[in-house]
Amino acid sequence: MVRIASRHCSAVGKLWSLSKWGMPSCSYRGLSGNTGSTNPFNQKREVEYPLVSNHGPLKLQALVSPSGRGLYSTAPPAIPEVALTSKRYKVQRRPFSEVTNEDLEFFSRLLQGRLVTDPDLLKPFNVDWLKSVRGYSKVLLRPKMSEEVSKILRYCNERNLAVSPQGGNTGLVGGSVPVFDEIIISMSLMNQIISLDSISGTLVCQAGCILENLNQYLEDRDFVMPLDLGSKGSCQIGGNVATNAGGLRLLRYGSLHGTVIGLEVVLADGTLLNCLTSLKKDNTGYDLKQLFIGSEGTLGIITAVSILCPRKPASVKVAFMGSPFYLLIETSGSNTAHDEEKLNHFLEKVLALRLVTDGTVATNDKKIKTLWALRERITEALNHDGYVYKYDISLPVDQLYQLVMDIRARLGMHAKNVVGYGHLGDGNLHLNVTSPAYDHALLSSIEPFVYQWTEKHCGSISAEHGLGFKKRQHIHYSKTENAVLLMHRLKSLLDPKGILNPYKVLPDISG
Amino acid sequence: MVRIASRHCSAVGKLWSLSKWGMPSCSYRGLSGNTGSTNPFNQKREVEYPLVSNHGPLKLQALVSPSGRGLYSTAPPAIPEVALTSKRYKVQRRPFSEVTNEDLEFFSRLLQGRLVTDPDLLKPFNVDWLKSVRGYSKVLLRPKMSEEVSKILRYCNERNLAVSPQGGNTGLVGGSVPVFDEIIISMSLMNQIISLDSISGTLVCQAGCILENLNQYLEDRDFVMPLDLGSKGSCQIGGNVATNAGGLRLLRYGSLHGTVIGLEVVLADGTLLNCLTSLKKDNTGYDLKQLFIGSEGTLGIITAVSILCPRKPASVKVAFMGSPFYLLIETSGSNTAHDEEKLNHFLEKVLALRLVTDGTVATNDKKIKTLWALRERITEALNHDGYVYKYDISLPVDQLYQLVMDIRARLGMHAKNVVGYGHLGDGNLHLNVTSPAYDHALLSSIEPFVYQWTEKHCGSISAEHGLGFKKRQHIHYSKTENAVLLMHRLKSLLDPKGILNPYKVLPDISG
Repeated sequence: MVRIASRHCSAVGKLWSLSKWGMPSCSYRGLSGNTGSTNPFNQKREVEYPLVSNHGPLKLQALVSPSGRGLYSTAPPAIPEVALTSKRYKVQRRPFSEVTNEDLEFFSRLLQGRLVTDPDLLKPFNVDWLKSVRGYSKVLLRPKMSEEVSKILRYCNERNLAVSPQGGNTGLVGGSVPVFDEIIISMSLMNQIISLDSISGTLVCQAGCILENLNQYLEDRDFVMPLDLGSKGSCQIGGNVATNAGGLRLLRYGSLHGTVIGLEVVLADGTLLNCLTSLKKDNTGYDLKQLFIGSEGTLGIITAVSILCPRKPASVKVAFMGSPFYLLIETSGSNTAHDEEKLNHFLEKVLALRLVTDGTVATNDKKIKTLWALRERITEALNHDGYVYKYDISLPVDQLYQLVMDIRARLGMHAKNVVGYGHLGDGNLHLNVTSPAYDHALLSSIEPFVYQWTEKHCGSISAEHGLGFKKRQHIHYSKTENAVLLMHRLKSLLDPKGILNPYKVLPDISG
Repeated sequence: MVRIASRHCSAVGKLWSLSKWGMPSCSYRGLSGNTGSTNPFNQKREVEYPLVSNHGPLKLQALVSPSGRGLYSTAPPAIPEVALTSKRYKVQRRPFSEVTNEDLEFFSRLLQGRLVTDPDLLKPFNVDWLKSVRGYSKVLLRPKMSEEVSKILRYCNERNLAVSPQGGNTGLVGGSVPVFDEIIISMSLMNQIISLDSISGTLVCQAGCILENLNQYLEDRDFVMPLDLGSKGSCQIGGNVATNAGGLRLLRYGSLHGTVIGLEVVLADGTLLNCLTSLKKDNTGYDLKQLFIGSEGTLGIITAVSILCPRKPASVKVAFMGSPFYLLIETSGSNTAHDEEKLNHFLEKVLALRLVTDGTVATNDKKIKTLWALRERITEALNHDGYVYKYDISLPVDQLYQLVMDIRARLGMHAKNVVGYGHLGDGNLHLNVTSPAYDHALLSSIEPFVYQWTEKHCGSISAEHGLGFKKRQHIHYSKTENAVLLMHRLKSLLDPKGILNPYKVLPDISG
């Protein structure tokens, strides 16, 4: 670690003068979960696995993992019981059909046994990673090919069976698990890389590929993924695209609306929509794939992705600075001496201006990972406080921290912690309030205040997490009535029976 | 101009080894048109202009220009008569209403006289810049505010009157002029800049702002537009977004699907859809604005744009190299010494490998513009050959030039020139075939061969120009039947009467 020397410099670093930034004071004790290298899911292997379902013995391609979610070679560890979503949130089940034995037989034949019906094995797929919502699906399907997804949806649409598409189940808004008994369609076995164009950097792969695996595949070939998330060890590219995930590289490489150049999607009626081009430019008609980026599985199931990947930077440096806020900066470039010179120049400026009092620069992989871990594992750390009220707010950069201070003042001693962190360059605040347990009175103090505050300051109530189940009723704080109406019309056009991920994204239509 | 010295270097420049590239051999004689600094439209001023229309004297906010398209203080120069689109292409007029005197009176009242009905003044708005298609609209409307556009469309939708939205009328596929008597809605007076966020670089402006004016405004404030086109002196940002224009900066800053972060759009029924956010991240529901990017005015009229603008680079350098192909490279960065070192390193490599035999580097503005003019004015130069058959093809980079050679071999002496240029880094070939005059037999030799060739090589028949009127029937070479069907369904949803820019983008429904 290198202590930065201070030298006089008169110019002002514009970014920095507006970048004072909070980090939580919570400690990092006994971290575990789906993030980073402690995640047991990072060590997976594919095996043939005998499984007894409700209707006879089945062969199953399974991910075996020593602990955590997934399919287990021994009994899974006890998962603390989470309140049923339908009860806690008083949701009304829509009049979908219920899964019958005949349905299960159809799926079993179609998927050659790649389905799960054992209630114990289904548990982790019914609960979100935050353990905040729970459904009670009775069957999980594991297609390997787009054609299978197509046949599943055609069947479900005809039978009026609701489905809940599931990637890595790392979402934070309850979008990736059933609310009632929706059939879970797990994309985990659709994990094949289809092609990489070594000139353009276009990667084509199935939707169930895990982000970190893709990035590793690319790094071995001198490219990187244009997105990076704390949940990279579990999250899947299809889920990333369906959520329009932001993450740590958005500032550098832009949003998925720009980097995703092709998608294959299965529509509600089973139609296979192939827009899986590998071309950077294609202006032949409407850009249909854009509809599905950020639609959270409610307009179609993404089965394959074509994405533009940048060259792996030859030089990566991370600076970590503080006083009174912590700021983490990563630079990447092609020439290490040039990057060092630019970074030092910046650091000298901000030190001379006393915007920064202390800091460190890391240039080797291990130290870089250590610094990033401080940022990436905040989510896990907060979970140790008990219950976490999570908000993912977009705001004009100069308004960003004011919300944290206003909430802190408003809640006083009622909250255990009020924490603001996020993506400064993107104007994205992760506001987290913690308490020892779920507390309805505390929630009432936060909401709708936090949404009204955001609306007043021209922000968005979901920057990158999506609306999922938990935020959908608040969409009107960020979208006009006309916009929401058009969304409903698009949903009706593409999924007239509403079988795709129901109770998600769109608010209930009011009287 | 600096001659590049050759030095030995053993490493291979990957990009270059695949970047041999053609430039046309045609000469640049007496250039004129809508491109670059010779464009009379670059010298515009706004005046109050008395105009006599078919139904009485009207006041008109007019762009006065010494020549070319627009509204003239004296009689406009003679425009060579272009064949009517409806006759040359044998199109059937759809059963829209015809404009009546009552309609004109309504528009005149609404727009306080900002409309044009004089046939002579209408001429240039009925013909595209390539002079390849011609409509016979009898009225042009000049709204200044979104609310006016909304009222116009509500009225037209009720009256079943078709409209042709028009920006700078610089399109190359006949998308920006009427096919029959559609009402032209000119966006030219909606040219106000609304805001610039000097931290995030988010520019918000009306759709009729001219690209070059926006870029100048930004450069004065240390930003630049993320797109740059040869037609920048005339084209408007709303038209750029409606076309999903690519251009010269796409390789660096990505496509408009990533850089456009908000739009205001008026739908066919007059609904004002406000998605004009200034936020980089907003995952609240479906990203509706994406629908309109690249829809060429057939799903709604874009009235305002919010776009992310990068910082103006402190250092810009242009390298121009040859043998046997010409390649133009522009670098931009924050440190001139660093950029020079990187560029020289690259040039030394390719010279040592004898991939380049000669070249020049420009670092000052004037020389940079001179080099860029060689590239930007190819379109104009080609027009001097007589008739130009234009193709805008996306292909995998390693297939890019093969098409030019195959077409050249196929046409032999029947073509005057077969020229390939474009955007190497984007895999975008502008294939141009010239002949002294329109020649149907020559066209039959090119089409459908060129489209079949493109389909076979997994390319797109329109990389950045769009489909407009001229390419719409060929969409199936690049899009599947299911995709085209979904486009038709979206069109029906958003514009059930089909009044918005009819006969464009989508093919006629067969059978």
